[in-house]
Amino acid sequence: MSINANNATFQKLIMLPGPTNVPIEVTQAMVAPSIGHRTTDFSSIMKEMIRKGKILFECNEDVIYLSSSGTAAVEASITNILRKDDKAIVTVCGEFGGRVSEQISSVGASAIELVADYGDFPSLSDLERALEKNPDTKAVYIVTNETSSGAMCHWLKEAGDLTSKYGAFLVADAVSNWGADKMPLEDYNIDFIATGSQKSCAAPPGLAMIALSKRYKEQMFKDPQKLHFLNLPRYIKMSDKVKQTPFTPCLPVYFALNKAFDIMIEEGMENRYVRHQVCAKAFYDAFEAMGLQLFGEPKARSNTVVSIAYPEGLDDKEFRGSLSKNYGVVVAGGFGDYAGKIFRVGSLGMINEYYVLTTISSIANNLNRLGFKANTDAAINAALKNLSKL
Amino acid sequence: MSINANNATFQKLIMLPGPTNVPIEVTQAMVAPSIGHRTTDFSSIMKEMIRKGKILFECNEDVIYLSSSGTAAVEASITNILRKDDKAIVTVCGEFGGRVSEQISSVGASAIELVADYGDFPSLSDLERALEKNPDTKAVYIVTNETSSGAMCHWLKEAGDLTSKYGAFLVADAVSNWGADKMPLEDYNIDFIATGSQKSCAAPPGLAMIALSKRYKEQMFKDPQKLHFLNLPRYIKMSDKVKQTPFTPCLPVYFALNKAFDIMIEEGMENRYVRHQVCAKAFYDAFEAMGLQLFGEPKARSNTVVSIAYPEGLDDKEFRGSLSKNYGVVVAGGFGDYAGKIFRVGSLGMINEYYVLTTISSIANNLNRLGFKANTDAAINAALKNLSKL
Repeated sequence: MSINANNATFQKLIMLPGPTNVPIEVTQAMVAPSIGHRTTDFSSIMKEMIRKGKILFECNEDVIYLSSSGTAAVEASITNILRKDDKAIVTVCGEFGGRVSEQISSVGASAIELVADYGDFPSLSDLERALEKNPDTKAVYIVTNETSSGAMCHWLKEAGDLTSKYGAFLVADAVSNWGADKMPLEDYNIDFIATGSQKSCAAPPGLAMIALSKRYKEQMFKDPQKLHFLNLPRYIKMSDKVKQTPFTPCLPVYFALNKAFDIMIEEGMENRYVRHQVCAKAFYDAFEAMGLQLFGEPKARSNTVVSIAYPEGLDDKEFRGSLSKNYGVVVAGGFGDYAGKIFRVGSLGMINEYYVLTTISSIANNLNRLGFKANTDAAINAALKNLSKL
Repeated sequence: MSINANNATFQKLIMLPGPTNVPIEVTQAMVAPSIGHRTTDFSSIMKEMIRKGKILFECNEDVIYLSSSGTAAVEASITNILRKDDKAIVTVCGEFGGRVSEQISSVGASAIELVADYGDFPSLSDLERALEKNPDTKAVYIVTNETSSGAMCHWLKEAGDLTSKYGAFLVADAVSNWGADKMPLEDYNIDFIATGSQKSCAAPPGLAMIALSKRYKEQMFKDPQKLHFLNLPRYIKMSDKVKQTPFTPCLPVYFALNKAFDIMIEEGMENRYVRHQVCAKAFYDAFEAMGLQLFGEPKARSNTVVSIAYPEGLDDKEFRGSLSKNYGVVVAGGFGDYAGKIFRVGSLGMINEYYVLTTISSIANNLNRLGFKANTDAAINAALKNLSKL
């Protein structure tokens, strides 16, 4: 029997750390007529996006939208303020921290890495020590959620207190967990949050969002970068002047994200943080009860990316291929050296009891199917113990 | 009476130089389930996009897709090969040529500008002279269609012959006219074509497309740029390896552009060139017959952006506002110093008799409504004389 038995398109459960399942009303919002991006049709949408963005990011400055992936927003956080020989501290414990470190070096700045093992996350003390040693640090870059390994920063608020003390900028590469984990920009003294539309917002990919502090904004204008596409002062000037973008915006995803923001505002950010925490814990408890080994340090566990170590002898391609083909559930593999050693479940966006329980039972059944004993009942019960809090 | 009299959404005629009207089947293609961008679901789409792109661009190397606006692709054509003190010749006769010149300087290269008045386009002799004077020119950047003024390059093929002779790279910023004007990459000895999804392709904005030569590719790999988002070698490596992108792709617009490419292939590029030429000429003849003054040099006239000078006393906001509100037709204003002096009609993508005639009669009626005599019959007849060729 196949999931495509009736020959129609089967919409799989996309349990990836982004892209993720998109609510139908968000998808449908993209079916709208073309509009001119230099007309009031567009600026009225922009006004709304800015208004809603400021509510959700809890920031005072207008939110900036880039028609690009999240990576471009992270790159912008570097090119717009770091200059040759500036010092920048960066958390490195996986693929994405490594990228940020590279990008910092690319602009001729000095990357001071806070390193942790794959599956772990650097500590607040690591940051404290680095700042003591380098009090002239210009900026601290925290990858708040290391998507490649499933480790997250649990001390973001404290980081903001520290950077304030030292006068360093605090930049959060929060591409995969903004919208799921708490990080109010002003309250936490964060200077820059970079994120994307296709992760915890449950919109399609195509837009990156940037919230920034007045301080960061002033720094950029003091010494603007030269290239255009990631030149944030250009975006701010166009937005301030006419509520438009300097370069053609990805209209369909504006329409989609505008709708996704309504959904987020209606649920409320505090509820979203709880929902993500509860569902993540349901997954962790369920996989352990199932008989699997959780990957990574318990103290570093992400609320949006759940990493599991493969039992000896279970082939990644076979496991994930069978899960997709026979159960319609798509999970991610591991990155780099960990390809074939772990799989990662994206637990974000629309995540709720349905997605958690369906994923758990599909994975348990899939393991049994492939000859690896999995305790389905124990897993489901462990999950339900947590999900009852929702 | 209002175009919104029945309180439903009125889908305006978007006669802008991009974004433009999108066929319903292209819009509908975006209503598709989320897929994983690191799965075979995506790589099979990518394979198709590359196959179709190579047919349409008439190039041998795989086409590259950036999830960004066209500007980013143009910027990439600069950052990926120009280095400090390299010489680059660039056509400058409006906003977009000016931007390319700035971006060239941004990377520390020397921009040698071929300048023409707004509404005109530099000549082949200008390029010849510049190359004679600077035989060590690394690259020539031609903005094939200066969207801000409605002037285009009519000697692109000859440019390719020249640059081949001198061993310089030829880069075409063809954001607004690829898909409308002939520019087969290999045949014309072009090294890089940068364009966007929302112009002559009649898809929504959100993707930029790059076709390049083997020569340009090899140069990039010899001395790759450091930053990530526009790092084309990264895109090429991921594509060669697994038919995926290094950063999350804008899925909805992949789906849309994939469908738009089918439409383009079915019509055939040669037919598209003819359609765009005939419709543009229909517009030019009609506006003259109507009693309006065409803006710009006749020899430089664009096939996709038709620029008209406002008669004395006609206010831009009033004219375009009334055209949009009372006729549902949206045209563009002028840029910079020409704001208020000209209006521009985008004649690209889905352009055909219907769009041409509706736009012409709407504009004529609008002029008469505002007290400016316009000869509607003469205009329509002048248009029909051309459109009968389709």
